[in-house]
Amino acid sequence: MKCGAWITAGGDTHFRVWVPNVDCLHLVADGRRRPLEPLADGYHQLTLPGNREGMDYMYELADGRLRPDPASRHQPHGVHGASRVVDTGAFPWTDSRWRGISLRDYIAYELHVGTFTEKGTFDAAIPRLAYLRELGVTAVELMPVAEFPGARNWGYDGVSLYAPHHAYGGPMALQRLVDACHAQGLAVILDVVYNHLGPEGNYLREFGPYFTDRYRTPWGAALNFDGPGSDAPRRFFLDNSVYWLREYHIDALRLDAIHGIFDFSARHLLAEMVDEVNAEAERQDRPLYLIAESDLSDARVVEDRERGGHAVHAQWLDDFHHALHTSLLAGGEGYLEDFGGLDDLARTLTRGFVYDGRYSRHRQRRFGNSSAHLPGERFMIACQNHDQVANASRGQRLSRLAGFEREKLAAVVLLTAPYLPLIFQGQEYGETNPFHYFVSHGDEALVEAVREGRRREFAAFVSEAEFADPQAESTFQASKLDWAKLEREPHSALLKLYRRLLDLRTDRKSLGNCRKDLMSVEVDPERLWLRIERSSEGGERTLVLANFSAEVVEVPIPGETQGLELLLWTGAPSYGGEAVGPVPFMERNRITLGPWEAAILAPLK
Amino acid sequence: MKCGAWITAGGDTHFRVWVPNVDCLHLVADGRRRPLEPLADGYHQLTLPGNREGMDYMYELADGRLRPDPASRHQPHGVHGASRVVDTGAFPWTDSRWRGISLRDYIAYELHVGTFTEKGTFDAAIPRLAYLRELGVTAVELMPVAEFPGARNWGYDGVSLYAPHHAYGGPMALQRLVDACHAQGLAVILDVVYNHLGPEGNYLREFGPYFTDRYRTPWGAALNFDGPGSDAPRRFFLDNSVYWLREYHIDALRLDAIHGIFDFSARHLLAEMVDEVNAEAERQDRPLYLIAESDLSDARVVEDRERGGHAVHAQWLDDFHHALHTSLLAGGEGYLEDFGGLDDLARTLTRGFVYDGRYSRHRQRRFGNSSAHLPGERFMIACQNHDQVANASRGQRLSRLAGFEREKLAAVVLLTAPYLPLIFQGQEYGETNPFHYFVSHGDEALVEAVREGRRREFAAFVSEAEFADPQAESTFQASKLDWAKLEREPHSALLKLYRRLLDLRTDRKSLGNCRKDLMSVEVDPERLWLRIERSSEGGERTLVLANFSAEVVEVPIPGETQGLELLLWTGAPSYGGEAVGPVPFMERNRITLGPWEAAILAPLK
Repeated sequence: MKCGAWITAGGDTHFRVWVPNVDCLHLVADGRRRPLEPLADGYHQLTLPGNREGMDYMYELADGRLRPDPASRHQPHGVHGASRVVDTGAFPWTDSRWRGISLRDYIAYELHVGTFTEKGTFDAAIPRLAYLRELGVTAVELMPVAEFPGARNWGYDGVSLYAPHHAYGGPMALQRLVDACHAQGLAVILDVVYNHLGPEGNYLREFGPYFTDRYRTPWGAALNFDGPGSDAPRRFFLDNSVYWLREYHIDALRLDAIHGIFDFSARHLLAEMVDEVNAEAERQDRPLYLIAESDLSDARVVEDRERGGHAVHAQWLDDFHHALHTSLLAGGEGYLEDFGGLDDLARTLTRGFVYDGRYSRHRQRRFGNSSAHLPGERFMIACQNHDQVANASRGQRLSRLAGFEREKLAAVVLLTAPYLPLIFQGQEYGETNPFHYFVSHGDEALVEAVREGRRREFAAFVSEAEFADPQAESTFQASKLDWAKLEREPHSALLKLYRRLLDLRTDRKSLGNCRKDLMSVEVDPERLWLRIERSSEGGERTLVLANFSAEVVEVPIPGETQGLELLLWTGAPSYGGEAVGPVPFMERNRITLGPWEAAILAPLK
Repeated sequence: MKCGAWITAGGDTHFRVWVPNVDCLHLVADGRRRPLEPLADGYHQLTLPGNREGMDYMYELADGRLRPDPASRHQPHGVHGASRVVDTGAFPWTDSRWRGISLRDYIAYELHVGTFTEKGTFDAAIPRLAYLRELGVTAVELMPVAEFPGARNWGYDGVSLYAPHHAYGGPMALQRLVDACHAQGLAVILDVVYNHLGPEGNYLREFGPYFTDRYRTPWGAALNFDGPGSDAPRRFFLDNSVYWLREYHIDALRLDAIHGIFDFSARHLLAEMVDEVNAEAERQDRPLYLIAESDLSDARVVEDRERGGHAVHAQWLDDFHHALHTSLLAGGEGYLEDFGGLDDLARTLTRGFVYDGRYSRHRQRRFGNSSAHLPGERFMIACQNHDQVANASRGQRLSRLAGFEREKLAAVVLLTAPYLPLIFQGQEYGETNPFHYFVSHGDEALVEAVREGRRREFAAFVSEAEFADPQAESTFQASKLDWAKLEREPHSALLKLYRRLLDLRTDRKSLGNCRKDLMSVEVDPERLWLRIERSSEGGERTLVLANFSAEVVEVPIPGETQGLELLLWTGAPSYGGEAVGPVPFMERNRITLGPWEAAILAPLK
C-alpha cells in the first residue's frame, strides 16, 4: 500500500503510514493532534479536507515520540525535523514528447549534485546540461538524492528515501532538473540505496520491523526482506522504485550494492521490482530500467527469468575498471590485487566477469560464475567513478595517478567497449581536483567514528597533513569541479577527444551495438598492445589499437594499412599529442604507436 | 582436497587436515608426536608406513591443544576423545549386484537406529530388514548417524561428520547394515546435517574459518559457505556427501534443513553438490540422490539447472503433512495454523506448495512460489515423521492423537498420493509409544539449557509430571518401538492395511507413477469427502475415495459402480473395521463411506 502524504484526485490531503501492532497513532500538524484510522495489515490513514501543500507534520508514536513520516516527500528541516506535504503531481512538466532512450544507447554521466556546480543544487546543474548533450552523453546519473543528515554527503547515508534533499532544492527542483534533462534529450538515472539506511536520523525501525538481525551488512543493519512482517518493508521499497519513475519522470534507477540486499525468500525482491518497473514502463509507454551495482559476479542478477535470473536490466561491471586500472598502473591494493592487466582486460571485454568460478586471492575463495553468454548491454562500465576515485584511489583521479596520455588511452578503451559506458563528472576534461568522501553528520560520536575509520583506512598511504577530514567543509569544497579548466590545456584537448570518441560511438554502428559476438580481441602480453575489432550486423568494421606500455610498439593489423582510414589517433597534436604530423607511422601491415597511444581505424569505403 | 585418515593403495596410512595460516601441526599417536608437512592452501599431510588400522590419534594445535580429527572416520571414545584410523575400504561387500532403485520407486521408512530396536545398534536393525521388505517399502532412511555427544541423540547434534556413531557400532557396523539392506533389495537414505554442528564437541572452528557471523541459524552458528576461506569448508561438506555414497554404498542423502545453508555466492553449494553426486552416480553406475528438507517453499531447490534451479533430485513437502493433519484433526498450533484442511489437502496433492506467494499468517509475510509444474517425484511426503511427532505433537503419534480409523485414512491418502511416501518407524502398525526429543550431552549447563528450552516450549500443553526430560534415559527408552504389538490387534490389522496399500502402489502403474498430470482431485468441503482419480499412461485407472468426517457420507463417482472393482475398503473386518460385510454400500453412482473410511476402486477389466 502506498504510504506518505499526497493530494488526492478530489483535492484533499491523504496521509498513510505503516505501524503494525499499534492501535492508535496521531498526526501532529497545524498545532493539532489528530488520530489516524487503523486499516488492515498495520496501515493507518487520515484524510484532511483540502490541499495542504506546504503543511509541516509529524507522527506521534504510542509513547509520545514525534517522528517524521517514513515516506516523507520533503524534509525541509533535515532528517530529524517535520515532514512537509508536497503536491508532486502539480509540477508543470514540459516533457510530454520524451519517449526515453533504449538501454543499448545509454552513455551515462555520473554526477554528484553537491559538487557538480559551485552552488551544488538541482537548479544549478541545469545550465550545464547543454554541455553534457554536446559532449555526447545520453544519460545523467545522479548520485543518491534522498534526504541524508546535514547538507553534505555522497547520498548513501539517506534515511528519508522518498524525499529529494532539501539542500539540493527539494522535490520540485528535482522535477525541474529532470524536465530540463529531457528537454536536452538526456535520460536520468537515479542512484537509490535499498540495502541499508544511513546511521543518523534512521527512524524507520521505530515504525515497524524494517530491519532484521538474521543478516549483516558492512554498512548497518540489514533490511527485512524475507522475515516476519516483511511484506510492508518490501512494499515500501518496491513503491519507492516506481515513485521516482512516475512522480519524477526518472528513466532508470541505479540500485546501490545489491549484494547487501539479503532475500532468501522464494521470490527475490529484485525480481519483483523488475516486474513492477516493467509494468510501469508499459503504463507510461517509455522504457524504464533498473541497473544494479553488484559485487557478486553472479550472472543470475541480469539473467532472463526463464533461466532463473532476476532479469535486472543491467548491472555494473567493476571488473572492467579493475582490469583497465591495473593495465594502466602497475600494482594496486585491495580488490585490485586480483587483477593482472591486459589479459584480464581482454577477458572482461569478451566475457564480462573476470572471476567466473576461479580462485580469488582477495576474496580468499572461488568466486563468480560465467557471464560470457550475456550481451554487452547487460553491463555498465567505467574507468572512474565516485567509489574508485574516493575509496580505491584515496580521492585521486586518473588525471593525478596516470597522467594525460593514459587518461586518453582509458577514454578510448572505455568508449569503444561493447558495454554501456559511464563517465564520472570531470573525467572528460581531466579534472585534477580530488573526489573525497565527505559527510556532515550532526552526531558528534558518529562524526568521530567516521573520521577515525577513514584515518585508519588511509593511514599507510596518506600523511596526517594530507588527510581529508570527511566532516570538514573544506573536504567537500575541494571535491567540487573546477569548470574554469575547460578553457585550458591539456583539459580542452582531452574534452575534444571525448567528444570525438562519443561521436564515433554514436555514428558507427559497429561501436555502439554492444555485440560481443561481433567482436574479436587480441593482446600481446609481452609487448603490451591491445587490438579490438568490432563489427556491425551490416558488415561495418572498426579497429581499435592501444599501446599499454611506455615504449614504442608496432601493432600488427589484419590486412593492409592501405585499405584503412584513420578515424582517431590520441597522439595527434589536436588531442595534445607531441607528434609532428596528424597520423601515426604505418607500414604495410602494422601501425606504430608511441607510449600509451591508441588509434581507431576503419576500412576505406 | 580429501581430508581425514585412510589407507593408501600402497598399504600405508595417510593423514590430511586443513588448518590454514598455521605452519606447524603435529600428529599425536602411539605415544609419539610427528610434524605434518604443510601443503598449499592450508592443508597439512603425513604418511605413516604400513596399515595403522585401529590406531588412535589426535592433532596437536599450535598452543598444544589436542583435538580429534575434523574428518575422523571413527570416534570410539566419543566426541571429545581420540580419532581412530579405520580402513573403510576393507569391508567385504556382498552387494556387487545392487543397481539401486529409481527415484520414482522410493517408498521410504524413516528409522532412528537407537530406538528402532531394543539394542539400538546398526547390527540389531539387520534382522528387521526382512520385515521391512515384506511390508513393501523400498528404502530405509536412517536419521543422522554422525558422532554426536553421548550415546542418545536424534543425530542432529553431530560434530564428527565423517564418523558413524560408536554407540551404534561404528563404521563397519554401518557398512554391514547397508550391505544387508541391499541384500534385501532396500535402498538406504542417510540423513546428513550440513547447516550447523552440534553444541558440544564442535572443534571444527578451532581448525579454520568453518563458521561465519554474517548469517544466523536457529540451531547455532552458520557455516561459512560464501565468505573468505570458504573453499575448504565447502570441500569438506561436498566430500562428505560423496564419502557416504562411495565408502558406505549409501543410495541417497536426506539433506537436513537446507534453509539453514546460507550461500549467496554465484554457485550455490547445493548445485555444486548435485553435480558431484551426479558424477559419482556415473562413476558407480547406479542412481544416487539428494533429497532436501526445505522450509522455503521455493521450487528452485529442485528446479532444473537450465531454469535456474539447484536441481536437487527431490525435497520434502511438509505441506502435505500439515494439510492432512488439519484434515484429520481440527486446529493445531504453530505452522499448522496456516493450514485449513481438505481444500489445502487437495491443493498440495495437485500443486505441491500450498503457499505459492500467498500471505502466510504463521510466517507473517507472503510466502513461497509455485511448484505446480513439477512432477511428483520431486517431493517426498509423510503423515508422520520424527519432527512432526516429537516437536509438533509433543511426542504423540497419530495413533494417540487421531485413533485407529483416522490412522487408516492417513495411510490411504499417503500411499496413493503422486509423491514419494515416507513412513515413520512404527507408524505401519500404529505404535502408541511416544517419540520424544532426547539427548545425552556431557555439558551440564547445556543439558539445563536444552531441558529448560523444551519445558518452556511445552509448558502450556504438558504438565510437569508428563514432561519428558530430554536428558533422562527414560525418555529415550520410552521412545523405543515395542515390536510385541505386531502380534496384537488393532496393530496387526493396520499393518495388513499398509501391506495391501504398498502392494497396490507397486502393482498398479496408476498409483506408483507420480504423474500429477494424469490425476484429478475433487473435494466436497461441506460434506468432507475427497476423491482422487489417478491414471497411467497406458490408461489404467484407480479411484480413491475418502471420508474426512465423523458422519456417514455418500461419495459420488464418475460412471457407475457396476463397472468398478473394490480393491480396498478400510471399513472391512480384515482391517479392523466394524462392518458386517466386506464391501461398503454402493448405489448406482455413489458409494457410502462410514466415519473416516476410505476405499480404493478400479474399473473392472
